[in-house]
Amino acid sequence: MTDEHPRTFKCVGILAHPQRPETFSLADQVAAWLRARDIEATALMHWDQEHTDPSGWNLAIGIGGDGTVLRAARVCAALGVPVVGINMGRLGFLAEMSPSNWQAGLAAVLRGDCWIEERLMIEAEWSTNSNVVYREEALNEVVISRGIVARIVEFETYIDSAWTTTYRADALIIATPTGSTAYALAVGGPILPPELRNLVVVPVAAHLSLDRPLVLSGNAVIEVVTHCSHQAVLTVDGRLAGQLEDGDRVTIRATGHVSRFVRTGERTYFYRSILDRMEPKSRI
Amino acid sequence: MTDEHPRTFKCVGILAHPQRPETFSLADQVAAWLRARDIEATALMHWDQEHTDPSGWNLAIGIGGDGTVLRAARVCAALGVPVVGINMGRLGFLAEMSPSNWQAGLAAVLRGDCWIEERLMIEAEWSTNSNVVYREEALNEVVISRGIVARIVEFETYIDSAWTTTYRADALIIATPTGSTAYALAVGGPILPPELRNLVVVPVAAHLSLDRPLVLSGNAVIEVVTHCSHQAVLTVDGRLAGQLEDGDRVTIRATGHVSRFVRTGERTYFYRSILDRMEPKSRI
Amino acid sequence: MTDEHPRTFKCVGILAHPQRPETFSLADQVAAWLRARDIEATALMHWDQEHTDPSGWNLAIGIGGDGTVLRAARVCAALGVPVVGINMGRLGFLAEMSPSNWQAGLAAVLRGDCWIEERLMIEAEWSTNSNVVYREEALNEVVISRGIVARIVEFETYIDSAWTTTYRADALIIATPTGSTAYALAVGGPILPPELRNLVVVPVAAHLSLDRPLVLSGNAVIEVVTHCSHQAVLTVDGRLAGQLEDGDRVTIRATGHVSRFVRTGERTYFYRSILDRMEPKSRI
Amino acid sequence: MTDEHPRTFKCVGILAHPQRPETFSLADQVAAWLRARDIEATALMHWDQEHTDPSGWNLAIGIGGDGTVLRAARVCAALGVPVVGINMGRLGFLAEMSPSNWQAGLAAVLRGDCWIEERLMIEAEWSTNSNVVYREEALNEVVISRGIVARIVEFETYIDSAWTTTYRADALIIATPTGSTAYALAVGGPILPPELRNLVVVPVAAHLSLDRPLVLSGNAVIEVVTHCSHQAVLTVDGRLAGQLEDGDRVTIRATGHVSRFVRTGERTYFYRSILDRMEPKSRI
Repeated sequence: MTDEHPRTFKCVGILAHPQRPETFSLADQVAAWLRARDIEATALMHWDQEHTDPSGWNLAIGIGGDGTVLRAARVCAALGVPVVGINMGRLGFLAEMSPSNWQAGLAAVLRGDCWIEERLMIEAEWSTNSNVVYREEALNEVVISRGIVARIVEFETYIDSAWTTTYRADALIIATPTGSTAYALAVGGPILPPELRNLVVVPVAAHLSLDRPLVLSGNAVIEVVTHCSHQAVLTVDGRLAGQLEDGDRVTIRATGHVSRFVRTGERTYFYRSILDRMEPKSRI
Repeated sequence: MTDEHPRTFKCVGILAHPQRPETFSLADQVAAWLRARDIEATALMHWDQEHTDPSGWNLAIGIGGDGTVLRAARVCAALGVPVVGINMGRLGFLAEMSPSNWQAGLAAVLRGDCWIEERLMIEAEWSTNSNVVYREEALNEVVISRGIVARIVEFETYIDSAWTTTYRADALIIATPTGSTAYALAVGGPILPPELRNLVVVPVAAHLSLDRPLVLSGNAVIEVVTHCSHQAVLTVDGRLAGQLEDGDRVTIRATGHVSRFVRTGERTYFYRSILDRMEPKSRI
Repeated sequence: MTDEHPRTFKCVGILAHPQRPETFSLADQVAAWLRARDIEATALMHWDQEHTDPSGWNLAIGIGGDGTVLRAARVCAALGVPVVGINMGRLGFLAEMSPSNWQAGLAAVLRGDCWIEERLMIEAEWSTNSNVVYREEALNEVVISRGIVARIVEFETYIDSAWTTTYRADALIIATPTGSTAYALAVGGPILPPELRNLVVVPVAAHLSLDRPLVLSGNAVIEVVTHCSHQAVLTVDGRLAGQLEDGDRVTIRATGHVSRFVRTGERTYFYRSILDRMEPKSRI
Repeated sequence: MTDEHPRTFKCVGILAHPQRPETFSLADQVAAWLRARDIEATALMHWDQEHTDPSGWNLAIGIGGDGTVLRAARVCAALGVPVVGINMGRLGFLAEMSPSNWQAGLAAVLRGDCWIEERLMIEAEWSTNSNVVYREEALNEVVISRGIVARIVEFETYIDSAWTTTYRADALIIATPTGSTAYALAVGGPILPPELRNLVVVPVAAHLSLDRPLVLSGNAVIEVVTHCSHQAVLTVDGRLAGQLEDGDRVTIRATGHVSRFVRTGERTYFYRSILDRMEPKSRI
């Protein structure tokens, strides 16, 4: 257990998946289980990132798929509240526990048999005519992509203020190590363990332009000026931020924040969790 | 020169790029050049695929980028009118001639120093509840893709009526050999010379599902049933066909038609034309 | 059942894996099972490709991994003897039956509930100073590769006598559709179903030269002139043919032969057999 | 100019390419040029890494291709002597100067208009039966690969003592950021700028096993236990170290050393140098 671990849990927030009622009853069970141990528990079913305030929480429990855990982590990042996920979704790379083992898992957390995994967060700052019109934090990735019309977008890309290359592609992904196993993985990006502090830049469907992933320092500032004859959109952690105008600039950099995940297993759990699932079925 | 080559050119259609006026003056020059040789020439500036009738043409000349040549080829495919392109665009994989050498090129064509390259065409047939709502022919590719919201689409895929695999991806491309050097190339597809009669199936951003291209016989019938929580769209040769409903089926197969391109160079021109451009700059 | 299917099986050759004694007892069991049905059966334990004569056989049964079935197929190709495999190996893409179901499988074959799958074969012809020094047939692939010293080899490549490109790579693979799921698959090649008549060309570790697979017509003649400062070797279906001198030429083309495999399942078995194994474990 | 830059250059070593006499005359010219500026200059034509002692040098100048600069850097790493390259080779990713501009370049270095780029180095420690039999430092990469017989090797891989995955492949590359643009680039690895402190692990021709690059912390210790039925060899920075026995272990980790390169251009030179060469020719 690291020094950053809260010694006591007085107040826990429980965040269910607002569109999946089957997560509600589990949220209620978890709340009851915590209250029986004299811990204040707040179960939120209908919540959104903008209006959820984790002040006072010593722990947040996300119940759902990776998307729910991701949203819980984004809610908690600014205040440094640690998060643990109970996976009721398909894959669950982020979630620590399952509907069948959460009681043992939470018991381990309460008695301190756990550690805190800190994961880099980045932000996207979107400027039109040098005016910042949007700024949002991401745990997985920032994506700039074409709209539904099949026209290539040009991504004029600067690293630390120096022009690096201009991608001609369907999309450009700037991912954290956490995001390296999400969307970036689907387009050939490398895998980075969660404790790294690097950024990954990888194009989608690069057409006769650089098609290789770049791995950068966590201090890098990436600026992307987007040129398109049709539509280009900005997506942050899977959420549509809006439609870019030709010439708009998106600046991506690490924020000071980290997402803090509570882990009860081995520190090397990551490789087993990810690689076991990626390997072809025929293996062994 | 093959047997299929028209012995005489009495009537030639010239198709400029409707949105690029710089192609209009070249179209007029080409028309004048042909008329000076007693050939009837019709130069169309503002045309579209639906309303352009190539009946009576012995040759069509497309002036613009690959997009213009592609559209000219689609207009001419049903009647078997051969097409030649004059490239005023960026890349010009399809075009034979350039603004600086078209006179020598057309002179060669008129005296029969040329051959006809026939390229496979495919069609997309889109069904909702077993009703065909759309059918269109393609020279490059049929694409089913997600809309602007970053949600993976499931593509339940059948080859010759047998379930093959279900892709989870941003998009699925079914390309002809001609299309193998267009969009499919940008997502890792193999290169096929234009005379082949195969189909290529390649997913875009496959997420923990099959990510390898399939090359099929030209007789294969490919059916794709699309499942999506948000939006999925059908695009045929770069043109948006419409928005699919969950469960809609798109059937792709070769049509009997071929696109017929007039070529004046070597029959192996293809490799030089394509590979020279793909190789990295540092090469020699 | 196709017309090519032998109406009666009078004589069957059984080919075990010479280095794996556990295949010998199964070979004996299969021979006894056949003899009990009045079929002449010859079980060979210690055999090699050069000295095994399948004359008179109506069927060959290979027992082992894909390597054994491959060698059985090569032995039988020239005489058109059909082959069936019983898989005692790791993967078994080629084998039809298993140690637990071969009796039902052979019974189906004997009563004609089967079909013959014909697969393209290619040959490698190796010339030094215009003298042919080696010629061998392959069902999977021909590979020219560097030796153990890590120096890039240059592969000057001609298709139908026209220079196509010069790869700078560790190796160059020329594969059949059968081979598309063997070594070529490991380096990003596309998957071709076994009935296709195409060739696939794919480099291994291409260094700043063309790195994309080519798919060619089955009529294509591929010539590779190899340039290396150190060692380069020729490998045919996994067997080392010898060490090339700088400037040696290897010509690869389809032979008239096909390998004939007896199949008892669906004609679309291929996709299930291959794709099920390739998909990541996390699927579903 | 960084603090680490030597204020004065009293003694410079010049390292030509021992097998390329055309580098000798340039080495002599450079030596004469330096001596004319009262700097002691030693030009070595026939040298090897083992017996070259850079003690007392304030600067080493490598003349040749990237291989020569690499070897010069390895000679100098332990003593921290900075290196500059004059490129007479094909690509020259490492070299700063060319035969036509070295005088201006060296003049800039002498007056301090330069900076020192430090690049991570790694070592390979090879053990048989727990006895270390070889240890060598690398600036580019450590490679374990199959020999000339086309049999897959199994690479049982541990990161920080935890089993991570077992690759089945032709080879496994463990590269530095410098090496990310060498061999690793040819097999799909990501590009890392030289100032990063990460390691990259990437398999060559992975066969139904993990085929995605891993990017690790510079603190990671990677152990690879090699299993092969035939031959496996260890190669360090392109030099053959020897033939591994089945079960041998190679441990790769960063050493405390860095290679120090003298640079006279922009700190962002890297992207232009690399990416300009990687982009397809058709670009622009």
